[in-house]
Amino acid sequence: MRLAVLTSGGDCPGLNAVIRAVVRTASNEFGDTVVGYEDGWVGLMEDRRRDLYDDAEIDRILLRGGTILGTGRLHPDKFKAGLDTIKANMADAEVDALIAIGGEGTLKGAKWLSDNGIPVVGVPKTIDNDVNATDYTFGFDTAVSVATDAIDRLHTTAESHDRILIVEVMGRHVGWIALHAGMAGGAHYTVIPEVPFDIADITKAMERRFQMGEKYGIVCVAEGALPKEGTMDFEEGGVDQFGHQTFNGIGQVIGDEIKKRTGYDVRTTVLGHIQRGGTPTAYDRVLATRYGTHAARAAHNGQSGMCVALHGENINLVPLEDAVGKLKVVPEKRYANAQALFG
Amino acid sequence: MRLAVLTSGGDCPGLNAVIRAVVRTASNEFGDTVVGYEDGWVGLMEDRRRDLYDDAEIDRILLRGGTILGTGRLHPDKFKAGLDTIKANMADAEVDALIAIGGEGTLKGAKWLSDNGIPVVGVPKTIDNDVNATDYTFGFDTAVSVATDAIDRLHTTAESHDRILIVEVMGRHVGWIALHAGMAGGAHYTVIPEVPFDIADITKAMERRFQMGEKYGIVCVAEGALPKEGTMDFEEGGVDQFGHQTFNGIGQVIGDEIKKRTGYDVRTTVLGHIQRGGTPTAYDRVLATRYGTHAARAAHNGQSGMCVALHGENINLVPLEDAVGKLKVVPEKRYANAQALFG
Amino acid sequence: MRLAVLTSGGDCPGLNAVIRAVVRTASNEFGDTVVGYEDGWVGLMEDRRRDLYDDAEIDRILLRGGTILGTGRLHPDKFKAGLDTIKANMADAEVDALIAIGGEGTLKGAKWLSDNGIPVVGVPKTIDNDVNATDYTFGFDTAVSVATDAIDRLHTTAESHDRILIVEVMGRHVGWIALHAGMAGGAHYTVIPEVPFDIADITKAMERRFQMGEKYGIVCVAEGALPKEGTMDFEEGGVDQFGHQTFNGIGQVIGDEIKKRTGYDVRTTVLGHIQRGGTPTAYDRVLATRYGTHAARAAHNGQSGMCVALHGENINLVPLEDAVGKLKVVPEKRYANAQALFG
Amino acid sequence: MRLAVLTSGGDCPGLNAVIRAVVRTASNEFGDTVVGYEDGWVGLMEDRRRDLYDDAEIDRILLRGGTILGTGRLHPDKFKAGLDTIKANMADAEVDALIAIGGEGTLKGAKWLSDNGIPVVGVPKTIDNDVNATDYTFGFDTAVSVATDAIDRLHTTAESHDRILIVEVMGRHVGWIALHAGMAGGAHYTVIPEVPFDIADITKAMERRFQMGEKYGIVCVAEGALPKEGTMDFEEGGVDQFGHQTFNGIGQVIGDEIKKRTGYDVRTTVLGHIQRGGTPTAYDRVLATRYGTHAARAAHNGQSGMCVALHGENINLVPLEDAVGKLKVVPEKRYANAQALFG
Repeated sequence: MRLAVLTSGGDCPGLNAVIRAVVRTASNEFGDTVVGYEDGWVGLMEDRRRDLYDDAEIDRILLRGGTILGTGRLHPDKFKAGLDTIKANMADAEVDALIAIGGEGTLKGAKWLSDNGIPVVGVPKTIDNDVNATDYTFGFDTAVSVATDAIDRLHTTAESHDRILIVEVMGRHVGWIALHAGMAGGAHYTVIPEVPFDIADITKAMERRFQMGEKYGIVCVAEGALPKEGTMDFEEGGVDQFGHQTFNGIGQVIGDEIKKRTGYDVRTTVLGHIQRGGTPTAYDRVLATRYGTHAARAAHNGQSGMCVALHGENINLVPLEDAVGKLKVVPEKRYANAQALFG
Repeated sequence: MRLAVLTSGGDCPGLNAVIRAVVRTASNEFGDTVVGYEDGWVGLMEDRRRDLYDDAEIDRILLRGGTILGTGRLHPDKFKAGLDTIKANMADAEVDALIAIGGEGTLKGAKWLSDNGIPVVGVPKTIDNDVNATDYTFGFDTAVSVATDAIDRLHTTAESHDRILIVEVMGRHVGWIALHAGMAGGAHYTVIPEVPFDIADITKAMERRFQMGEKYGIVCVAEGALPKEGTMDFEEGGVDQFGHQTFNGIGQVIGDEIKKRTGYDVRTTVLGHIQRGGTPTAYDRVLATRYGTHAARAAHNGQSGMCVALHGENINLVPLEDAVGKLKVVPEKRYANAQALFG
Repeated sequence: MRLAVLTSGGDCPGLNAVIRAVVRTASNEFGDTVVGYEDGWVGLMEDRRRDLYDDAEIDRILLRGGTILGTGRLHPDKFKAGLDTIKANMADAEVDALIAIGGEGTLKGAKWLSDNGIPVVGVPKTIDNDVNATDYTFGFDTAVSVATDAIDRLHTTAESHDRILIVEVMGRHVGWIALHAGMAGGAHYTVIPEVPFDIADITKAMERRFQMGEKYGIVCVAEGALPKEGTMDFEEGGVDQFGHQTFNGIGQVIGDEIKKRTGYDVRTTVLGHIQRGGTPTAYDRVLATRYGTHAARAAHNGQSGMCVALHGENINLVPLEDAVGKLKVVPEKRYANAQALFG
Repeated sequence: MRLAVLTSGGDCPGLNAVIRAVVRTASNEFGDTVVGYEDGWVGLMEDRRRDLYDDAEIDRILLRGGTILGTGRLHPDKFKAGLDTIKANMADAEVDALIAIGGEGTLKGAKWLSDNGIPVVGVPKTIDNDVNATDYTFGFDTAVSVATDAIDRLHTTAESHDRILIVEVMGRHVGWIALHAGMAGGAHYTVIPEVPFDIADITKAMERRFQMGEKYGIVCVAEGALPKEGTMDFEEGGVDQFGHQTFNGIGQVIGDEIKKRTGYDVRTTVLGHIQRGGTPTAYDRVLATRYGTHAARAAHNGQSGMCVALHGENINLVPLEDAVGKLKVVPEKRYANAQALFG
């Protein structure tokens, strides 16, 4: 048999580990060959591909961030219009089944291909951990680790300067990174998109710290956080002299407001892209490798429209539609538990 | 109410995070006070204790390895003989319930106390991840991360020198650390206590690498690994001039044997104690914190003889007897999957 | 004898290592006692101090970022007006000599005190490495390491997305961090304050990469970088709806301009405060410890108006006026050598 | 012109950074071509070589440990006997000058080739930092960092268990790694080969710690440490059942003796090969890159018999004979200063 693999959507630590496990499992367990399409769906449409062997390159990509296949984005309309091209390209390359590694959009595309007769197995990928149907996605642990390392460093600076530091982490729609990095980094307040914040609660938490003798505080803010309606004068952004928006920075907005209300010395740091690149943690390498092995088996065994998923200690197959139906958000209780640590 | 907490058994990254969460949850959620006994059961017997407050020290221990309470070991007979002393000490300190953080031995002790009328909640702790009834224990991810970092470094040295490197990691009874660090570190063969090894399989795997053009190999060995009966001449140890055993090193034994059989340049590294100390990973800090919160709640709510446990994404309470009944070993299939990556 | 020590100015990894070495050298080598003033000159003026002993706390601060004494800033006029207060406070505390750890401003203050009859020894401190008279300052290696780790991570994301990434690092007046992090991180162009940049050179360097088959690039920019006059339409900043400046971000300015001129996908990341906090590198701990030992000896031996400095492998004493006369800038040749690596 | 480069001797983080800088400087500054010989002198003798270009591979090796050229050892007699072969191979490959990256042995070889009419420039390489004529060698900072990270982790375990931990680090002939890692890691006693130790001094230092209320200690021991004559009953090694020596472990010897004399709980950890592999620190990448650039220039400019060296902030050329004459040992005063921190 011949399997194909592609990576699609944003960069995510562990992509190469999945590719490596797919190639090795296919080759060692079944004697299958593997081809990789470049730049996600785009390469599949344009028939840009290369053979992948269980060779020295594959052996060494385990700890490399990024993806040796490249990634890309394709508009769903173009994608759907290209169904015949995709089928022709796969037939031409004698590919029996496709393994698509990507986030929600990619998995939707995978499901659509499967519905249209192409055997596809999905591997969920997102640093945001917002894919339903799986406990965790690879890349998430690395993002949390990078953010936690950063928060560890910020503590000492904030403390030395009697300062409140706002750390804005990734998470436009869900607050998993903020929740875990905030807990692991010992932030004194955490704000997530799922629960609109009241700026008065944050300032109260900071003031409580100063009253108990502490002289600094750390607030961890997901980039998608939003104020509770009516609690804060807040414009979502302006336009600078170059014509682009200046204010997608909710961290800065919160920092400015705390400063205005309390007079404390407040600074904001936006962690940005460092959260989504680089060498994956050991946890993510193990999870990504297990995903790759199970995806290769499922593809070899003729399963389609399925997606690998972590449940407890096990990797299972779940229907792709379960993975893409809705975002996995932080449960209210998890958020409440984390905040309760700070009284 | 008044809760007590103690840490017992071997060092494990995340102990302080549990203590911190216990203190904060007790204090902020219930207004309970917390006392910490020093050096595990020993301190409980000798009534060495100190009050723990939600103060600056507690705020800063999250990323400190070790345990601010110290740890210790006590012979089960002495422990049982001291029941009345323990009861008297706890009454004297007006403690309503005890939270015992420790490995299998500690949890057995906790169960015995509970059976004898003392309210106790257990928190499983082991870098070895061998506690039944929970998906993972805190400390395990840190141990795996340290071992993986080490293996990452060994790759380049082995490769530069055309060498086979044996890495002995912790795991006297179970192979979880070896399994995960071997997978994450890209070891080319992994040996665990659960599956007696045939030295011929290891040399074959190494020879296969050299045949395919590679010039080095990494073998990850759990310290408790043992050869399949009859496959290798093997004495478990000798005695040196100082009268102590020279040979608990199965890594060295395997390395020597591969060298003898193949003529390759083989070296052995024993990672040792660095796997069980130091700053916990973000993963372990989150898990330990969640354990602490749930243990404090269980203790406050009058539950006894129970143990916190991770199941998928949730923290649950399970009977202590489920946690101590038997070791959680690596399932055959997990091991087979990992080895299959290397043909 | 009795020595005093204080830390002043911005946070810098290694401050605690200096304090530790001062206390231990004073205590173990001379039997001197040591007092620490809190929050820099402010604490000296307000007589806020505490005794420092060779105890468990001092033993453990070696790897803690920040400063256990706190830091602060005091306007030079207030400082000078307080000379009598300072003398009175030091007399009252029976302090024989003062060790002041700080940047250029602090060392100027130290010199002024020395000129006015107070025995003072200086220890240069700045993550920017801009103190003349010493090869390197502690804190610099940590800042470079943090920035390099970040750039390492950005490579894989930039590569996966065919993107140009601008990384803005610290360095308002000098480009040492940008130079070293750019070299260590393998940036493809580096911009420093000492050499005004021509935006056309940067775009040319990026275009050259794409022509040679690469699909991404990393540009490392010191926050104090400025364009060569007449080469770029550039306004230094605007004012947003909250009344504060939106544009101190030269990294963003460069990124926007490259995008406008080339059409490439360009993103900017500002590393910010994570560069100045947290656990110091081994290099910085060694340097800071050696500074502390030599400063304690100099202070004990009655030297004043002097500053410790690293010259090659040795720690020497130099007049404070040599340290504060002018900024140590990146030599033209060092910058040219670094850029030459990229043709 | 055409330059050749080779790497010889033990693995050392930063080798690839030197190769990269040589290729880029030669190519971009002079339009020279570069060829790499594989496996050190061996590849030069056997004419195994490959062209090195300023391409994607070279761009990405900066942070890879090991050496893409491989390394090897060749007996000096064979080496000298091969002079004509070497000359013929270099002529055949049209190589004008050779850059040899290696330790003392390699640099001696380089000098001998230069004396015999072959243009050679040396680049000193050793994690041990024992090359005379240069302040520091690349690889040393990485080795110290790895050892320091390990010691950081051991502190918390030792402290939790009231234990003395002996950490054996690399350094057969000189104690630079032990000195710096001991200082950076906050070891409570450090033993180096340059100064024979008295076991009674070590036990005294440990006892002093316990007397002042501490309950643990860390001793950092260079593998080449030796007892002062007559102070300890000490056999250098025995022979185990496999016929090889059991006792090159001076760390274990010291640990056993402390235990015997004091009764404390003592454990020994040997860090081993993890100190010499893996991603180089930012410091080592900068130093290695600067060495490479200067070596390429020197080779291009027809200099021979010279070696690059770091003096303060500058890279200079020094005669190879200055680099190989004698080992650079730890000065007595540096050692005394470090020990003085512990009274």
